[in-house]
Amino acid sequence: MQEKLDSIKEKIRTIPNFPKEGIMFRDITTLLKDPEGFNEVINLLAERYKHSNIDVIAGIESRGFIIGAAIAHKLGLGFVPLRKPGKLPYETHKVEYSLEYGKDALEIHKDAITSGSSVLLIDDLVATAGTCLAAVKLIEKLNAKVHECAFVIELPDLKGREKLENQGQKVFSLVKFEGE
Amino acid sequence: MQEKLDSIKEKIRTIPNFPKEGIMFRDITTLLKDPEGFNEVINLLAERYKHSNIDVIAGIESRGFIIGAAIAHKLGLGFVPLRKPGKLPYETHKVEYSLEYGKDALEIHKDAITSGSSVLLIDDLVATAGTCLAAVKLIEKLNAKVHECAFVIELPDLKGREKLENQGQKVFSLVKFEGE
Repeated sequence: MQEKLDSIKEKIRTIPNFPKEGIMFRDITTLLKDPEGFNEVINLLAERYKHSNIDVIAGIESRGFIIGAAIAHKLGLGFVPLRKPGKLPYETHKVEYSLEYGKDALEIHKDAITSGSSVLLIDDLVATAGTCLAAVKLIEKLNAKVHECAFVIELPDLKGREKLENQGQKVFSLVKFEGE
Repeated sequence: MQEKLDSIKEKIRTIPNFPKEGIMFRDITTLLKDPEGFNEVINLLAERYKHSNIDVIAGIESRGFIIGAAIAHKLGLGFVPLRKPGKLPYETHKVEYSLEYGKDALEIHKDAITSGSSVLLIDDLVATAGTCLAAVKLIEKLNAKVHECAFVIELPDLKGREKLENQGQKVFSLVKFEGE
């Protein structure tokens, strides 16, 4: 198992100073384009949740769409996109969240998820978890419950896990980049 | 077969006047959240290409990520995202295309696709095909070939198919919305 995870981590490229000076950007495109790497990521995540009675997969725009949609298909579930403002055409709920400078927001269609559903929330990476917390709030606005927040990559230095767990959320990630 | 396609079409919601007056927006979120609908879309497309010797799936940001990534996983292939400017962290090629008002552009990582590859290009919808033509140009810049441009939805009134075919591309769509 550790071997599989090491292989996944090795396929993630690090780009220094993107999108700005001082940020080590973890680029999953090198993992996604690799048939074995992409396949392994989806299989490992699907395996974890296949007996969890999840009703639907929600993915965060836009790399969360890539991971989330593939897991949804693998598990035979539907897929719900959580999107940046103005992208969803029907009635939406909206939750704002803070960025380092300024604010951003995420939206969900009001009829995206049936009340009482168990939702697996997917994004490619968790850093400070601002986006993911907004996503959790959107799902809860529809009276649904997040089963777990699942990521390919976790950056533990940025303490997103703590923030999510403090809000009662469960967190899972395949690989971590720490102090690098 | 026609029954399956009719069922897919019925699950697509039409939102009048989005994003602006006079546009009938075809909203696939109602199809994606439906487990049978989403599953059927991916299975039908994967079935069409499973013996086509395709090397990699390319998807156009961002609804093309949802459809493309699920097909890639189903076929055991890698996935390459074609993105809006500034989103891809490594060296990119960029192609601009015209919108009704102004311009937009699409980018690809320079190392995304191996020279000589056969690429299946995926988006959710083809209208005027401006975005898809830009995507084809990006793939060709990497000396790869587009096997076919595949869409869930085609709007024949907007003649995207003709434009793509005039550039030597093959086009496939699951369902069409015409004169509606």
